[in-house]
Amino acid sequence: MKILILPGDGIGPEIIAQATRVLDVLRSDGLKVETETAPLGGAAYDQYGAPYPQVTQDLARAADAVLLGAVGGPQYDTLDRPLRPERGLLAIRKDLNLFANLRPAILYPELANASTLKPEVVSGLDILIVRELTGDIYFGQPRGVHVNEAGEREGFNTMRYSESEIRRIAHVAFKAAQKRQKKLCSVDKANVLETTEFWKEIVTDVAKEYPDVALSHMYVDNAAMQLVRNPKQFDVMVTGNIFGDILSDEASMLTGSIGMLPSASLDQNNKGMYEPSHGSAPDIAGKNLANPLATILSLAMLLRYSGNNEAAAVRVENAVKAVLAQGYRTGDIFEAGTNKVSCSEMGDAVVAAL
Amino acid sequence: MKILILPGDGIGPEIIAQATRVLDVLRSDGLKVETETAPLGGAAYDQYGAPYPQVTQDLARAADAVLLGAVGGPQYDTLDRPLRPERGLLAIRKDLNLFANLRPAILYPELANASTLKPEVVSGLDILIVRELTGDIYFGQPRGVHVNEAGEREGFNTMRYSESEIRRIAHVAFKAAQKRQKKLCSVDKANVLETTEFWKEIVTDVAKEYPDVALSHMYVDNAAMQLVRNPKQFDVMVTGNIFGDILSDEASMLTGSIGMLPSASLDQNNKGMYEPSHGSAPDIAGKNLANPLATILSLAMLLRYSGNNEAAAVRVENAVKAVLAQGYRTGDIFEAGTNKVSCSEMGDAVVAAL
Ligand SMILES: CC(C)[C@H](C(=O)O)[C@@H](O)C(=O)O
Ligand SMILES: CC(C)[C@H](C(=O)O)[C@@H](O)C(=O)O
Repeated sequence: MKILILPGDGIGPEIIAQATRVLDVLRSDGLKVETETAPLGGAAYDQYGAPYPQVTQDLARAADAVLLGAVGGPQYDTLDRPLRPERGLLAIRKDLNLFANLRPAILYPELANASTLKPEVVSGLDILIVRELTGDIYFGQPRGVHVNEAGEREGFNTMRYSESEIRRIAHVAFKAAQKRQKKLCSVDKANVLETTEFWKEIVTDVAKEYPDVALSHMYVDNAAMQLVRNPKQFDVMVTGNIFGDILSDEASMLTGSIGMLPSASLDQNNKGMYEPSHGSAPDIAGKNLANPLATILSLAMLLRYSGNNEAAAVRVENAVKAVLAQGYRTGDIFEAGTNKVSCSEMGDAVVAAL
Repeated sequence: MKILILPGDGIGPEIIAQATRVLDVLRSDGLKVETETAPLGGAAYDQYGAPYPQVTQDLARAADAVLLGAVGGPQYDTLDRPLRPERGLLAIRKDLNLFANLRPAILYPELANASTLKPEVVSGLDILIVRELTGDIYFGQPRGVHVNEAGEREGFNTMRYSESEIRRIAHVAFKAAQKRQKKLCSVDKANVLETTEFWKEIVTDVAKEYPDVALSHMYVDNAAMQLVRNPKQFDVMVTGNIFGDILSDEASMLTGSIGMLPSASLDQNNKGMYEPSHGSAPDIAGKNLANPLATILSLAMLLRYSGNNEAAAVRVENAVKAVLAQGYRTGDIFEAGTNKVSCSEMGDAVVAAL
């Protein structure tokens, strides 16, 4: 298996360094992987003047899987839109056709206090959000800012979903639900938006192929409420790109420990890009303070989905559980009575636990 | 002042009946108001075959303010889209040019336990969400479902904001912030959507006229997280129609008592429609179980904004605070040790407190 490693910006290089150490242990135990490294986002702009340069494109297309740190930083905020780090992220998702974004929101029992929600509301929380990642208003044309018929400046974007785009993400979501509690909630705004009324129609049609999965539908505003009111009612949620962006971040934050949450973005053949759900955290970059566990858990997802190596994935996940049980905590998840460690010390602990 | 009363569907008539009793008390104490009643939503469809019929349009245009219960119900879900209750709601908003939706999310100290969040995270919560209500992807053309160039069915909608639409809602938000903690957070997705990058540019420009208000900007996904992580960081938030729909529902639910939250939808001249933030709750309709307080507090907002009668507004709000202090609770906010009452008994208590 060929893995392309994209450290990215901010804390990206630090957290990726720890995940790479984990990979090295697996490799020394016989895992067959080749790795390459390339820049993405701000780092790529600094080196090549573009957030997703040709060298990264070539390596990404040739790889079986991509492990990403994070992109973005305030020094890039004033760049022209096409040069900004986020553009690199959107471009690689689209280029590799990574339409299925899987974002688990899991509460680790050891970290139950980190949540701002009451323990009884979130204990045992385990939601999987399946977000469509290459369509919707993120990529829809036409878009821009122009002078409208009334002679006024106006911004505009287009939300769009074709039947095949909806079908393929629905299949991913139903299959994921089959492996879990067999409950799928499709989120839309069908009472207002034709695009999502169409979404609901197609998801309902795909459901016929999955009679063992209980499908429900919810409006996005209600879903945003229900995640706060009673998040444990959800097993798998599926939604479009923009609603998924909002709801998956809200769901992550319910756990209080977004520094623990990995994500996977897959194409039709389980080639994927794996990255922590958190961002590049420029404020703590370079200080050896970041939590590398979401990145290490992203590597576990990589091994599971793109590597088809459940044993290696579970081994990494168990090592993470072990270090939590041993009381190791980076600053973001620290509480009195636990052992506060740096990013690299957390890496040491995971390597030791492996 | 002419008030048009729209009981609507579900629990609408019950909660409106209690608000009307409150209005009657004020009237007998000298408040000069004329009222008319008309149907909206499903009730209007049943009677006139349209969710916003001519009779309601005529009365709404002639009124100074509109008090609405709620619209919608499962029996209308299979109607053609233009006949559904929500269409009546969207139509009256657009027809009366009610572009400024004010949605407070306030935690009443007596109801602190109702929240699913930890007390220290939400105690004293007082956020005002200013949502643009007549633009964005809600009304943008073109929209629909068609066969695209690839020969496939596709749904599409258009997000749109013109400069003047953004300016006028920004002014409302800055003025609201001036009367509060002088902090305004504008929510966008400027890193992806040109419409909201334009939004950010215009809001930043309007800020020059309000040097006493501290303006910040936040991406919508981050805002959805921050509302869970630390909601008390916010004073006033301003955003577009669809993001506002999602975030205002999320923010309401932080309080755990959406049955307490009113809303106002205003035009340029403070003509407005006032309604509870909760929906028509078909499951408890007709059972005298609903919480009428959000509707009564909506009447208070009506008196304040459209009636320019701060004294009457405060009198109603104080009556609501009094009944909470006296321990009266409808089922939605009931907890052990308080006095469970019906919808009409809660109305009795408010009338007595007045
Ligand atoms: C950085 C941004 C473009 C991106 C998105 O909106 O998709 C991020 O928020 C995410 O969720 O991965
Ligand atoms: C019923 C629906 C059309 C409406 C909206 O989306 O605006 C509702 O959710 C609201 O927030 O008032």
